[in-house]
Amino acid sequence: MQVEIITIGDELLIGQVVDTNSAWMARELNKAGMFINRITSVSDGEEEILNAIREAASRSTIVLLTGGLGPTRDDITKAALCKYFKTQLVFNQQIMDDVETFLKHRVGHINQLNKDQALVPEKCDIIRNPVGTAPIMWFEESGLIVVSMPGVPTEMKHAMENEVIPRLKAKFTNGIVRHRTVHIFNIPEAVLAEMLSDWEDQIPAFLKVAYLPSPGKLRLRISGKGENAQQIESAIENAIKLLYPLVKENIFGFDDEKPESSLLNLLFSKDKTISCAESCSGGLMSHLITSVAGASNAFMGGVVAYSNNLKYNLLGVDSTSIEKYGAVSREVVEQMAKGACKRLGSDYAIASSGIAGPSGGTDEKPVGTVWLAWSDGEKVISRSFNFGNNRERNILRTAEAGIIIMKQLLERGTL
Amino acid sequence: MQVEIITIGDELLIGQVVDTNSAWMARELNKAGMFINRITSVSDGEEEILNAIREAASRSTIVLLTGGLGPTRDDITKAALCKYFKTQLVFNQQIMDDVETFLKHRVGHINQLNKDQALVPEKCDIIRNPVGTAPIMWFEESGLIVVSMPGVPTEMKHAMENEVIPRLKAKFTNGIVRHRTVHIFNIPEAVLAEMLSDWEDQIPAFLKVAYLPSPGKLRLRISGKGENAQQIESAIENAIKLLYPLVKENIFGFDDEKPESSLLNLLFSKDKTISCAESCSGGLMSHLITSVAGASNAFMGGVVAYSNNLKYNLLGVDSTSIEKYGAVSREVVEQMAKGACKRLGSDYAIASSGIAGPSGGTDEKPVGTVWLAWSDGEKVISRSFNFGNNRERNILRTAEAGIIIMKQLLERGTL
Repeated sequence: MQVEIITIGDELLIGQVVDTNSAWMARELNKAGMFINRITSVSDGEEEILNAIREAASRSTIVLLTGGLGPTRDDITKAALCKYFKTQLVFNQQIMDDVETFLKHRVGHINQLNKDQALVPEKCDIIRNPVGTAPIMWFEESGLIVVSMPGVPTEMKHAMENEVIPRLKAKFTNGIVRHRTVHIFNIPEAVLAEMLSDWEDQIPAFLKVAYLPSPGKLRLRISGKGENAQQIESAIENAIKLLYPLVKENIFGFDDEKPESSLLNLLFSKDKTISCAESCSGGLMSHLITSVAGASNAFMGGVVAYSNNLKYNLLGVDSTSIEKYGAVSREVVEQMAKGACKRLGSDYAIASSGIAGPSGGTDEKPVGTVWLAWSDGEKVISRSFNFGNNRERNILRTAEAGIIIMKQLLERGTL
Repeated sequence: MQVEIITIGDELLIGQVVDTNSAWMARELNKAGMFINRITSVSDGEEEILNAIREAASRSTIVLLTGGLGPTRDDITKAALCKYFKTQLVFNQQIMDDVETFLKHRVGHINQLNKDQALVPEKCDIIRNPVGTAPIMWFEESGLIVVSMPGVPTEMKHAMENEVIPRLKAKFTNGIVRHRTVHIFNIPEAVLAEMLSDWEDQIPAFLKVAYLPSPGKLRLRISGKGENAQQIESAIENAIKLLYPLVKENIFGFDDEKPESSLLNLLFSKDKTISCAESCSGGLMSHLITSVAGASNAFMGGVVAYSNNLKYNLLGVDSTSIEKYGAVSREVVEQMAKGACKRLGSDYAIASSGIAGPSGGTDEKPVGTVWLAWSDGEKVISRSFNFGNNRERNILRTAEAGIIIMKQLLERGTL
């Protein structure tokens, strides 16, 4: 059984919106043992939508559509579906009631565009949408299932989780797919691939390995498909065990685990607190940490000391050190980390100071030069990096390295 | 002339990676007057890649591929292209030299996987890649152009900007496409669509309008296609002029303009500085502002006062106010904003305090309750919101509202 995704919307084809729906849907369907065959994005044109459905139907038994169901004129997915399934729009009182309930406290009055949401193709099963006004449509004909969902991510996700995936699971039993992803820090792709060449030969043939590089880190994805979940899972676990002696120090996480969540869990278990003293990372380190629910149990706060004055006033950095060594230096970043523990009242602190660019670099300290420090208030460990010449990437790599290395220092008992 | 994009990689179909390449490529091609017909994502399977190329070639004259060119075993795009164009891999000394130059300072030694990058299909034009090791391949046969680029965004972008788009432009003259996007704050989609119904009838038929909603804001995209650039552009400008009386107060930007960039430009022009005092937005406001190159000319810094102690110690909030009104209150957020101007030495400050969730809500102040304040050190303006029950969205909407409203207050001379 093959599943295809078709995302509909001019905004996708002119690049104004990045299609994040497909990746989310693929992940959730995978967990349920369903495999995506192809993802297609087409414009809000009737012919384009019809062609995409026809082609998908020729390859796959399940076709999931998102988008083109809004109340506005540019949304024509319903019309295309009526044409494909040779049916017509009819008024549905239940949907009308749902739209009214949903909009009651949200808009002043319900207009004709809202009311038109209650017009639905006659030849489909309607799935109600409690988080929006566009109903979900489930078509089933000669062994083909086509489901049309709104493109708004929250509405699509609600429909998938609560209705579409449970219904598909009830209808089909499938081969089982399992993935594990190992996060590896600071080894370039080709170097890692060579280190792992023997390992790749050693693991069972039904496991597939993929290298997914991104700035400063790499995700190694190990996938298995088969009939026996336990067999696949233990083969994957074995493969990971064999991986450890090869890249141990550089493994910093698994699957969807985020370094900031792992760091916070470690702090919770030790009943310790942390703070951030940021210069070049500009608040991103605090943002990553506070993105995790419950962060307030361990995160005291942060200072974004962009100006040198704030490095003195809020973090207690010695002004002569800045004059002597410059703000981007071992001396200053170490004082920032120790100062943060004291002034922000935390057990540990991470500090950053660097030249994010595009300007501000010198021959001695080019753009991308970053100092990071980690402290427990007494001891302080620091390290310099050069992350290259892209501002966005420098900020991201600084914040991530600060968090990943803090976690490693705590795990190893160095701090 | 139609252009299609095919993105290749198992990671796309299992949802581990969001395809951001296509959106970027579509935007850049649009600027050059080329229109994307369809975007397809397929796995690293030879049959899948071949089928996708065959189908795209039947609809379009230009097919752009990204991905599957890495040095590791899971990358098989080159093999598929050899099959499609009935050719074979040959060794290319120039690519070998490029790979050696590129890797010289990056890896200890150049391994066989790196060297294999110099094996390229005989029947194509090779475009050198100065920012990576995988060469770009340009195939041209019976009126069909197929270009294969690496999936790593920086490498793809470099190839597109410097080689692929200039070559395509030189080869084809096209119809002209223009887009303008108007950013609108705080009006739900269906309400706006009704407000603009007459306006949509009034604008020329060759202009197309799309509503692109996202949390708390909406982008209205006006597109025109034709032969005369000036005619399209002035029709779009006219349409925007007609829009102003209808939604003026709520327009907060155009096209790729980000609110944080507009705010900084406004501050630069007034020679004024700003700081942030964040509680529930957790550093994101500072991060958004410092993402803009040159931010340090107006951004003094920020405090992420997650614990109440830091609200007293770093921002000078009166501890009795927190006891009396709670940390999420008009009184506290106003003191945070005024305190930030003073303690962080800035002309203006934005402050946030709220309940991001998932826990911490009460009947009186449910999850999503957010107070924001804007101050010039003397005057202070504050406003409460409820952004709903999703932590990520609460953090984002708090940070964005803080920045957008600060910009509006400065533009209107209220602060």
